[in-house]
Amino acid sequence: MLNSETLLPPTHLTVIVMPHSAAETIYQAIESIELIDPHTHINPHAPASRTLADILGYHYYTELAHSAGMPKEPIEEPDLAPRELVRRLVENLQPLENTSQYHWLVAICQKFFSFQSDRLDSSNWEALYDTAEKTMSAADWSQTVLQESKVRAVFLTNDFDDSLEGFDTETYIPCLRTDDLVFKFHQRETQERLERSSGVSLNGSLSSLRDALRQRFEHFSAKGGRACAISLPPNFEPTLVNEGRGTNAFDAMLHQSESAAPAQKQAFSRTLFWMLAELCDEFGLPFDLMIGVNRGVYASGVYQGQDLYDSRVSLIQYRELFNAFADVKFPVSVLASVTNQELVSYAWIFPNVLTNGHWWYSNTPSFIHRDAQARLEAVPANKQIGYYSDAYKLEFVWPKFDMYRRVLSNVLADHFVGMNGWSEERAIELGHRVLRGNVEEIFLKQSASKMTFDSASSKPASSKPASTSDLGSIALAAEAIGTVAVEPIDQLPSEDEIQMLEVPDVELDRGSDQESHPDADAIDAQAEPDPLPLESLSFDNPSDESAASLHHEIQPLRNEKSFELDEDSLQLKPDPMTGELRLPNPAESNDEGENSEDDDFELRDE
Amino acid sequence: MLNSETLLPPTHLTVIVMPHSAAETIYQAIESIELIDPHTHINPHAPASRTLADILGYHYYTELAHSAGMPKEPIEEPDLAPRELVRRLVENLQPLENTSQYHWLVAICQKFFSFQSDRLDSSNWEALYDTAEKTMSAADWSQTVLQESKVRAVFLTNDFDDSLEGFDTETYIPCLRTDDLVFKFHQRETQERLERSSGVSLNGSLSSLRDALRQRFEHFSAKGGRACAISLPPNFEPTLVNEGRGTNAFDAMLHQSESAAPAQKQAFSRTLFWMLAELCDEFGLPFDLMIGVNRGVYASGVYQGQDLYDSRVSLIQYRELFNAFADVKFPVSVLASVTNQELVSYAWIFPNVLTNGHWWYSNTPSFIHRDAQARLEAVPANKQIGYYSDAYKLEFVWPKFDMYRRVLSNVLADHFVGMNGWSEERAIELGHRVLRGNVEEIFLKQSASKMTFDSASSKPASSKPASTSDLGSIALAAEAIGTVAVEPIDQLPSEDEIQMLEVPDVELDRGSDQESHPDADAIDAQAEPDPLPLESLSFDNPSDESAASLHHEIQPLRNEKSFELDEDSLQLKPDPMTGELRLPNPAESNDEGENSEDDDFELRDE
Amino acid sequence: MLNSETLLPPTHLTVIVMPHSAAETIYQAIESIELIDPHTHINPHAPASRTLADILGYHYYTELAHSAGMPKEPIEEPDLAPRELVRRLVENLQPLENTSQYHWLVAICQKFFSFQSDRLDSSNWEALYDTAEKTMSAADWSQTVLQESKVRAVFLTNDFDDSLEGFDTETYIPCLRTDDLVFKFHQRETQERLERSSGVSLNGSLSSLRDALRQRFEHFSAKGGRACAISLPPNFEPTLVNEGRGTNAFDAMLHQSESAAPAQKQAFSRTLFWMLAELCDEFGLPFDLMIGVNRGVYASGVYQGQDLYDSRVSLIQYRELFNAFADVKFPVSVLASVTNQELVSYAWIFPNVLTNGHWWYSNTPSFIHRDAQARLEAVPANKQIGYYSDAYKLEFVWPKFDMYRRVLSNVLADHFVGMNGWSEERAIELGHRVLRGNVEEIFLKQSASKMTFDSASSKPASSKPASTSDLGSIALAAEAIGTVAVEPIDQLPSEDEIQMLEVPDVELDRGSDQESHPDADAIDAQAEPDPLPLESLSFDNPSDESAASLHHEIQPLRNEKSFELDEDSLQLKPDPMTGELRLPNPAESNDEGENSEDDDFELRDE
Repeated sequence: MLNSETLLPPTHLTVIVMPHSAAETIYQAIESIELIDPHTHINPHAPASRTLADILGYHYYTELAHSAGMPKEPIEEPDLAPRELVRRLVENLQPLENTSQYHWLVAICQKFFSFQSDRLDSSNWEALYDTAEKTMSAADWSQTVLQESKVRAVFLTNDFDDSLEGFDTETYIPCLRTDDLVFKFHQRETQERLERSSGVSLNGSLSSLRDALRQRFEHFSAKGGRACAISLPPNFEPTLVNEGRGTNAFDAMLHQSESAAPAQKQAFSRTLFWMLAELCDEFGLPFDLMIGVNRGVYASGVYQGQDLYDSRVSLIQYRELFNAFADVKFPVSVLASVTNQELVSYAWIFPNVLTNGHWWYSNTPSFIHRDAQARLEAVPANKQIGYYSDAYKLEFVWPKFDMYRRVLSNVLADHFVGMNGWSEERAIELGHRVLRGNVEEIFLKQSASKMTFDSASSKPASSKPASTSDLGSIALAAEAIGTVAVEPIDQLPSEDEIQMLEVPDVELDRGSDQESHPDADAIDAQAEPDPLPLESLSFDNPSDESAASLHHEIQPLRNEKSFELDEDSLQLKPDPMTGELRLPNPAESNDEGENSEDDDFELRDE
Repeated sequence: MLNSETLLPPTHLTVIVMPHSAAETIYQAIESIELIDPHTHINPHAPASRTLADILGYHYYTELAHSAGMPKEPIEEPDLAPRELVRRLVENLQPLENTSQYHWLVAICQKFFSFQSDRLDSSNWEALYDTAEKTMSAADWSQTVLQESKVRAVFLTNDFDDSLEGFDTETYIPCLRTDDLVFKFHQRETQERLERSSGVSLNGSLSSLRDALRQRFEHFSAKGGRACAISLPPNFEPTLVNEGRGTNAFDAMLHQSESAAPAQKQAFSRTLFWMLAELCDEFGLPFDLMIGVNRGVYASGVYQGQDLYDSRVSLIQYRELFNAFADVKFPVSVLASVTNQELVSYAWIFPNVLTNGHWWYSNTPSFIHRDAQARLEAVPANKQIGYYSDAYKLEFVWPKFDMYRRVLSNVLADHFVGMNGWSEERAIELGHRVLRGNVEEIFLKQSASKMTFDSASSKPASSKPASTSDLGSIALAAEAIGTVAVEPIDQLPSEDEIQMLEVPDVELDRGSDQESHPDADAIDAQAEPDPLPLESLSFDNPSDESAASLHHEIQPLRNEKSFELDEDSLQLKPDPMTGELRLPNPAESNDEGENSEDDDFELRDE
Repeated sequence: MLNSETLLPPTHLTVIVMPHSAAETIYQAIESIELIDPHTHINPHAPASRTLADILGYHYYTELAHSAGMPKEPIEEPDLAPRELVRRLVENLQPLENTSQYHWLVAICQKFFSFQSDRLDSSNWEALYDTAEKTMSAADWSQTVLQESKVRAVFLTNDFDDSLEGFDTETYIPCLRTDDLVFKFHQRETQERLERSSGVSLNGSLSSLRDALRQRFEHFSAKGGRACAISLPPNFEPTLVNEGRGTNAFDAMLHQSESAAPAQKQAFSRTLFWMLAELCDEFGLPFDLMIGVNRGVYASGVYQGQDLYDSRVSLIQYRELFNAFADVKFPVSVLASVTNQELVSYAWIFPNVLTNGHWWYSNTPSFIHRDAQARLEAVPANKQIGYYSDAYKLEFVWPKFDMYRRVLSNVLADHFVGMNGWSEERAIELGHRVLRGNVEEIFLKQSASKMTFDSASSKPASSKPASTSDLGSIALAAEAIGTVAVEPIDQLPSEDEIQMLEVPDVELDRGSDQESHPDADAIDAQAEPDPLPLESLSFDNPSDESAASLHHEIQPLRNEKSFELDEDSLQLKPDPMTGELRLPNPAESNDEGENSEDDDFELRDE
């Protein structure tokens, strides 16, 4: 901190001070990265909002307004007109103005609906409502939001029996959500949904259950699903249940349903969860674990505003899982910031544990700041998925990511540029990696990266320990996959990729385009907006005289020394202005092309 | 952070930088707010200190000196003269100079006793002792401290059998402390104290216990008591105990006393605690929960320096309580910062959970900073009680609040002004609200605010769910109160308020003065110092030339754009320079008076 | 934070701003303090590295590279040549560049091997390898590293059966590590090692065990051992086990070995641990507790990269221990930052609990920052051991301490200078104390400080409560030591000290040199580099014109007001430029010598 002692008496020496210029420069750069949002609850059939009620109806506003004193009934009155719901909520927003969630709301209105105020109140909501409704009625509104938000694709949260039909799975990427299977299988409805969707009859044998689940994995993989996901209560402890015990528990689910003993339900949850992990291994899908939520703690709360938690949870509960499935990537989200250090440490030690975003009650700036910084200073850069929006409507992707980008820029500027002496460019590269690069590497190029790790080593791929070596008495263990060669065929939807798997390691590395998963390629092929040239970056308030002068002074410096990405030891070739990770093409990377194997490896490691 | 890269070579451009001016401006504004301290241990019969021994005898100094190596005996020698105690402690203060507690001590000496040094040591303590003794001997010393500290009133911590006689309950507001009842009822003495003070004979029936407790609530309410409070060990889990089990446990307390089985003691603690919550509901009293302390962990420690904790506690333990008593406000304090995120989340979801201050081992700047920021960015503003002093002597209210104000100013400046782009005025409003406004709203205007919430909704008051709907087999449940109409008469001490309860909602809102609870009115009627005009705010070092120049430059700007409180969408009418929340009078708010219902509602929500 | 609003239009007023000058000044001062590193894993027979493989082979790099995707086999291939290991690891470092550990690596290469880059990669590693190998081949390389790192001595981690022969125990200070004894005693090998090294036959009686352990304590004390240490799993709860139960468990270890029941192993661990605490009491050794690690969580991890933790641990588990051994100093390290507040609070209350460093998974800047600040604002200054390196090779002491010093400087500048208004000199004193002074006080002057505390009180030494008063049925309790008089003779190796123990308190305080433990004296007598005069401190970039000018301007001020250590109430006599705590000699401290008892006491308390 600066204090009065640092203000010396005037002298003839003049100094220009640009507070936080590093943070601002970094922010401007990472703000222009095109995003793939790795976890949302977007409905692909209605991805964007139609009225302000879709935005204000987000549970953050209803639950906070309720918490601040608004009864539940006026919020959840049946058949309420959207305009009336907005009217009622606006009347109750004042106590929420301090919250980060309110900040998102105003940011959305300003960005998308030309809202001029920084407060939404009785004096201005009706005009806003009308403007918003008109704006959103455009046929291509979803596309507009995606473009204005610089979002290339979003991951969904799909029920296991979702048909995944009727939407563009390259923009709306399926993700198999498995909460119902693991925690609601005692409900007859869940069992019927599984039988119906899979076409497999559950006959009481675990193999019938496994067949049904595998059919769902096949379905999701065929439709471009790129992840399996689940949210877990704090007391959940996944362990391997032996075949006999598991069969017994399965039987209890089928025949006793809701009335099954808690111990049976628990044993079944563990059994099914373990099968999911095996299938993730088999199908090469990352398994997103969202750890720590207790459902329905405030049973009288508004819709989706009832869940809380017990922060006394430890990743040691997942010890057996992480050890058993060495080849499954587990992007882990923790609900409470108190668990973040464990997440950092487990991701620092376990190759298959990755840090994933800032979830729910930890998704506010101060928790993001401390959690993100702790990760950035100790977890390998290729294992951090910086952020996901968790949004239900597309409009929220932008303000949520922007909150994260602001915090990330500050951490990059303070810790890496300020304390560690990095260049801004290097900090921006790191920002790109956690914001965008890793999403592709982890979710969209799985098979390729599996190959990459192996070929990068001085050992053949077969030297990797079998992931299921300790699966014990489960007969299926023999089927589990430890090498790339036996990846099931339905995960390899194109000839290109199959070909890639067969070329020798060395040549593999030479290839650039082949290395991308076809899904990623398809995405890359989409039209993308021209990247902003850095020179056009402007300060927040360009009309301010002195800032403009400063800006003028700085440009030459920046042009000279900052964005020559191939100087120094810079092997990375992401364009920091776009969301695209590019391997250098021969014309561009001639100099480095001579650096042979080592260079290749570093590129691969990216 | 700024670093050397931001120091560009000299040019002809000159820039004035005022580091942290926002924080300083905000601090100056909130520093002038008159306080109501919502939790202290002040003895109303001897509220201020008489000698330095009363100040240095505070457990923080004795326990820290002991921790640093001073044996217990010289501190607690019987019949020790105050001067000698001070001499001994001063000799042992050196290792404590880094602590926040020592900072309070020096601040007190500088503010109240013209102490010039920033260290209290063998060279200067005697002169200080004499000056202090002389200063404190003034007959109106307590009043002087209150005035110089800008404190209008303080909440007390009263034993349940306190007569509450002999002091001004508008300045020293009673609060019913219930630890003895819940956790020491197996002691014969506690039982006798309850029988004696209530006049009710405990005959073994729970109804006799309830009658005795209700008599105590009636007594406290009649004497202006505004809260019920308790501190709780980390393993406490309040649940509803059924009538039979509770009766059995009560019997064990009465007949086995200390030798009762632990399970009986626990069942009884839960039974009595639940009754207290029911009575808080019935009497409209907030129930302060101070969660997490283990008593007597260091049994050989100095007086009041023996308590520690197990930070493994969760608010999920209070799930049943929070659900059962929807109409009781629970201002919650947590002992360890690790629980703060749970507190934030529970206050964000449960309408009846409020955040309350920074308690004990979390009452140091860095914990306050992280905890306060987390609250300010996620908990509705009307549910945050920023701070209480917990002081035993009046002199400590000021330095403790000042520590908080410094931190709060930084958070408001950095997060809200800096990151969110708020004006300083808006940040000051938020500061006022958590520092002072909410104390009135939550503790002093309970009935009014109950009405407000209901009338503000689009539903009648009766639409609120009954708070005791899940009280199960407890017969008394039928008596519990779910609506305003049956508030017991002894909580409505003036005709004004009774009248208020009967007027229709719309007219209620028109009224301004009536909306305050009589207690609050009485307090408002006290003489208060003229608010400082903003123009007179001075920098810390007004003699500094450059700062003075800067000050001169800034005033016009500030006058022009900052303090026209009725511009924009500003409905709040607290005077940021005083502690007074004012509803606009007709002359002032003519413009807004036309805005009809919506406006009314927002005023009410405040 | 500064933001655009603070940039006012240009005026004719010129202000020089030196961002963070306080932090930089403080850093420069504490950077020059000579260190005693209170905990390392240095091998005294090969303290420094011989090739880069010794540095890159540190588990932080192998485990992080493995975590980032490198298989274990190429790292741990038998008989791998150092150069090849380095080649392989360098190829896998890219994803680690963001980590603090990587920052240490580059810092080492830059400082010791004239490395010019800030990235270690395939283009430069070979040249670096050769330079490093050549540099390290110098016969006095260890001494060079110690000198360039300004390290006077390091504490070791010695097996209980270490002969402690063949090295200079004044530079390499023995520390008795007891993990094997407490947690691996069921292994036959451990039993045999104890019998062999102690010469005591374990006959099944606890007294034989105690004799063997005491022999080890005697051995370590005779060889200059200054601490006992152990790392503990999160579920460990030391309690007093009664003699019968302990004997039974001991019998199970001897006769059932590995197959002993878990309950027996646990009871034995507690029994032996308690004996260690008794022996620490008897021998006046601090007992370093490193709390919270689970070993082998990731069993397939690289060497030393397999341990993790369950952060759900509480110091309340140590309640009985801390109460029973009032005279044993327990420097406590916690593995997870979430436990830091408990550590702060327990050290604030218990005289025998001290805060010790930032351990392992908490040893990164952001955790250090929050943990150190919380300690500095609430724990007495004489109870904080700021940092230890935990290093396996001498080269790591410097960059690790430097990371800490940077953070410490920021906390001292922001909190103490900025917020509390301290002078920089006072902040530097505090920095010296936690960095160096306390290491001497706590580990190297134990007997003296024991005396000091007693004589400083207004009570005779015998007034201290016997530490073992609550040892209950353990017959040995009578032997345990509560007073100084019965310190075992082998701990008092010089006549000087014995004499000191017999002189009256008052005269004791007069003595200056005698007050140091002989070990400390011996260390002090070593040749030490001339302290840098403050005037020679230079800015990071001395060639920068404006910085140089500023530097020039500031010097006079600093010389005038800053380093006259005997002005004001300054009793401390550490030279902030060196690592030496000096009591004033008669010539220097004539003025203060007249201040009689009070002054003496404060000196002692230091």
